[in-house]
Amino acid sequence: MPRHEKDEVIDITEKFTLFSEHWRPKVIAEMNDYQFKLAKLKGEFDWHSHQDTDEVFVVLKGELEMHLRDKVLKLPQGSLYVVKKGVEHKPVAQNECEVMLVEPRGVVNTGDDSEKTALTAPNDVWI
Amino acid sequence: MPRHEKDEVIDITEKFTLFSEHWRPKVIAEMNDYQFKLAKLKGEFDWHSHQDTDEVFVVLKGELEMHLRDKVLKLPQGSLYVVKKGVEHKPVAQNECEVMLVEPRGVVNTGDDSEKTALTAPNDVWI
Repeated sequence: MPRHEKDEVIDITEKFTLFSEHWRPKVIAEMNDYQFKLAKLKGEFDWHSHQDTDEVFVVLKGELEMHLRDKVLKLPQGSLYVVKKGVEHKPVAQNECEVMLVEPRGVVNTGDDSEKTALTAPNDVWI
Repeated sequence: MPRHEKDEVIDITEKFTLFSEHWRPKVIAEMNDYQFKLAKLKGEFDWHSHQDTDEVFVVLKGELEMHLRDKVLKLPQGSLYVVKKGVEHKPVAQNECEVMLVEPRGVVNTGDDSEKTALTAPNDVWI
C-alpha cells in the first residue's frame, strides 16, 4: 500500500475494519521519524524489550494487560501507557483488543536482541 | 505538577475532567523527546506553522476543522491528522472538542516565528 497523501484525514475506526490478524501492526501515519500503528491483539505476546526507545500503547477498544517482570498492569479502553526503553514487557489480551502504537520507524515488534520469532511482524505495512 | 511515574496507566477520559480552559495543552505522557498532550478547543486559533516538526492531532470528542491556506478539512471524532512541518494551519472548533496532540517537547503552540499572542500557552504543564 502506498503511504498516504499528506492531507488525508485518517478515520481510525474505519482503518480497523481493513485487517483482522492479531499482532501485526499496520502503519496509518508518520510524524517526523515516528509511526502511528494500529494493531489487534489477542492472546499472549513474547517477552521483549526495545533498548533504544520508549513505546506508547493507546487502548482504543477492549482491555490489554501489560506484564512487566514485577507486576501486571491493566490497561482499560481509553488508557495510554508508556513502556520505557529497555523495560521487558509482554502484552497479553485475554480477549481481542484494539490498540494504537506510537514508536520510531523501524522498531521490531518482538524486540531488538531476539532472533525472529513466530510473532515477529513485517514493518512498514501501511493501510 | 510532577511528571508521572513511569508505570502509571493514564486514563485519558479522567485527565480531561481535570481542566476546562481552551487552547491550553496539558502534558499527560512523554515518549523519548516527544510529548502527548490533551487540549480542549473552542473557537478559532491563530494561523501558524512549525518549521521543524510535524504535529499530530487525534480528535477524541467532537469535531475539529483544520484550515489550511487552500482548503478546510473536517476532522471528526475518531480521526487522526498530521500537519506536516512548515504548513500553515489554523484549528477551528465550532463547538468544543477534545484532542490529543503529539509533538516534540518544546513546540510553541502558536508557532515558531511569531511573537507571543494571546493564545500562546505555557509548555510542560502536566496533569
